[in-house]
Amino acid sequence: MKKIAILGSTGSIGVNTLRLVERFEGRFLVSALAAGGNIQLLKEQILRFKPRKVSVVDEDTARRLREALPPSELEIGYGIEGVRAVAALPETELVVSAIVGTAGLIPTIAAIEAGKAVALANKEALVAAGPLVMAAARQKGVQIIPIDSEHSAIFQALQGHRREDIRRIILTASGGPFLNWPPERLEEVTPREALDHPNWQMGEKISIDSATLMNKGLEVIEARWLFDLLPDKIEVVIHPQSIIHSMVEYIDGSVVAQLSVPDMQGPIAYALAYPERLEAALPPVDFCELKELTFLPTDEQRFPSLNLAYRALEVGEAMPAVLNAANEIAVEAFLEGKIKFTDIPGVIERTMNMYQGQAAGSIEEILEVDHWARKKAEKLIEHGLG
Amino acid sequence: MKKIAILGSTGSIGVNTLRLVERFEGRFLVSALAAGGNIQLLKEQILRFKPRKVSVVDEDTARRLREALPPSELEIGYGIEGVRAVAALPETELVVSAIVGTAGLIPTIAAIEAGKAVALANKEALVAAGPLVMAAARQKGVQIIPIDSEHSAIFQALQGHRREDIRRIILTASGGPFLNWPPERLEEVTPREALDHPNWQMGEKISIDSATLMNKGLEVIEARWLFDLLPDKIEVVIHPQSIIHSMVEYIDGSVVAQLSVPDMQGPIAYALAYPERLEAALPPVDFCELKELTFLPTDEQRFPSLNLAYRALEVGEAMPAVLNAANEIAVEAFLEGKIKFTDIPGVIERTMNMYQGQAAGSIEEILEVDHWARKKAEKLIEHGLG
Repeated sequence: MKKIAILGSTGSIGVNTLRLVERFEGRFLVSALAAGGNIQLLKEQILRFKPRKVSVVDEDTARRLREALPPSELEIGYGIEGVRAVAALPETELVVSAIVGTAGLIPTIAAIEAGKAVALANKEALVAAGPLVMAAARQKGVQIIPIDSEHSAIFQALQGHRREDIRRIILTASGGPFLNWPPERLEEVTPREALDHPNWQMGEKISIDSATLMNKGLEVIEARWLFDLLPDKIEVVIHPQSIIHSMVEYIDGSVVAQLSVPDMQGPIAYALAYPERLEAALPPVDFCELKELTFLPTDEQRFPSLNLAYRALEVGEAMPAVLNAANEIAVEAFLEGKIKFTDIPGVIERTMNMYQGQAAGSIEEILEVDHWARKKAEKLIEHGLG
Repeated sequence: MKKIAILGSTGSIGVNTLRLVERFEGRFLVSALAAGGNIQLLKEQILRFKPRKVSVVDEDTARRLREALPPSELEIGYGIEGVRAVAALPETELVVSAIVGTAGLIPTIAAIEAGKAVALANKEALVAAGPLVMAAARQKGVQIIPIDSEHSAIFQALQGHRREDIRRIILTASGGPFLNWPPERLEEVTPREALDHPNWQMGEKISIDSATLMNKGLEVIEARWLFDLLPDKIEVVIHPQSIIHSMVEYIDGSVVAQLSVPDMQGPIAYALAYPERLEAALPPVDFCELKELTFLPTDEQRFPSLNLAYRALEVGEAMPAVLNAANEIAVEAFLEGKIKFTDIPGVIERTMNMYQGQAAGSIEEILEVDHWARKKAEKLIEHGLG
């Protein structure tokens, strides 16, 4: 049985991972879990999967969790040290890194430094600190298997082919819920509308990012580091049906693509079992039931966030961390009703314009820039954007 | 430079292969050529590519070719011995097997027995004698790289993935020129209409086979042996745009597909350069220019030939050779105006019904069955089908 730890066990990816552990009984053992403050769900997970160690957001939550549980040997930690310990638990073989946002960066690095294979759902670790994360993985000889459906598709489409034959990778984007809305209506978008993704069931942050297309921008940056490809080799095409999850074009004009029904259990199962596959993790694609597969160019006017991501890669240094931090703040503000949907890219762009080339040579420096960018973005929102 | 021999150099695959040799100057050397009776084109090929050995259909043609050429060291052979010698020339590394029909079987075996890698366009070798051809290839440790676009797609989609994870392969079929014709109009189809394939430029035999869908049937049988998969793991779906050339579905529900513009130079280039790829062998797919990709089930009523192929696999023994031989005769008769388009499956089915389990344990036995089936099919056509 493969021993896995899950960072972010009560989130969407965490819950789906545990569902797979349950479905494929006898294949995986849950060694450790880290969550935030949802102790009701975490308690259920502990009773069901019996990890040896867990971690929660803070001391008070840890105390309340202990009280809610029957007496046991379970080790309960909290805060950054707690989640690092969960990530580095000696018996763990694979760490599912699924904490949303920059908060996932330190535990991801901790897992890599402890020599664990990482199933990576937290895209911000690569967005903010791609070169550092990948260098650590190379140094430790650790495999990073992406859980994002697009990167899982690229990962699968690269298997067995020669790296030097890659001409470009093509990330597909559903276009989100507003693909066909008239641009002038985007101003009035409510959080509820933005959370209603046409194809995927996902967490709140990533659903909003999908609606702005910033999710695809973050994925471009993630792909740049994960597959060590320059930005001009990474393209995005809108594919509203979310059946082709991404493609690799080789130098001879041949394209290898990965397809499946849109369900996160697919890429999670692939990452959990790699290099094996889990029988019937997903229902099969019924090609004759599919109406059609279509493709459209991305619309820069309607979705300016994607270009901001390419710009961040072009500037380099800590700019992707700035983009990412400002985006997290802007999405939160939108969900809280503080700014309009169409204000999100503005907050990010203005924050990016304030970046003065602070260094990004260490995780500490990146977290400083991240902190700085959050403050700047928060101020922009507080003081109004007009 | 990779030294290649081409069996069938004046046919569609042969001509395209030589076009690639010309485009990728310095990568390939043409060591030998075999053709039929088109000595005008063969002469041009000899003068341009300077092979050391050639072969033509018969002694008289060989003599006329010699007279048409300036004096040289060129060895000119003819008949079965001539083409075998071309296939087995010591310095050759890769043999492109592109003679149409059962005539390609003996030289393909000769190439394998001489230890050459084979780029296989002749599908009848595998259809009529799949187990023998594959056993010879295994014994000699010879790689068979398919040139059929569908099998090239499967070959590419299998690279780097585990054999035991294959759930099924899905061969795509364009549906040919008559996909949307009313069934009652198929009776009146002329050879000219049947030769006019919507997506692919190909030779005459394969164009008619595409119109009846027997081409897909032959490909199912070919795939059964090439990839060692039972028939129930091989499915066919109509994909009228011929962009997705075929797919592999893995046990987890994930599908890996290979796509490109429909141009035979793609799979030929892949087979020539394997395991490398040739830069810009094909123009890239412009996904945003594609209107849509669609899929339909196959229509057994309209295209009964596909089922005949599955039936031939089910019966086994020499039945696929019977199917193949009867099909060659029926297609020829249709092109000569002797039978109607809709008579083709009837000729094949009736010939199959006469098969009495003759043995298929050796190439000689298969060629006997092939000969027997041709005679039967010819008689059926002569005596009318009513």
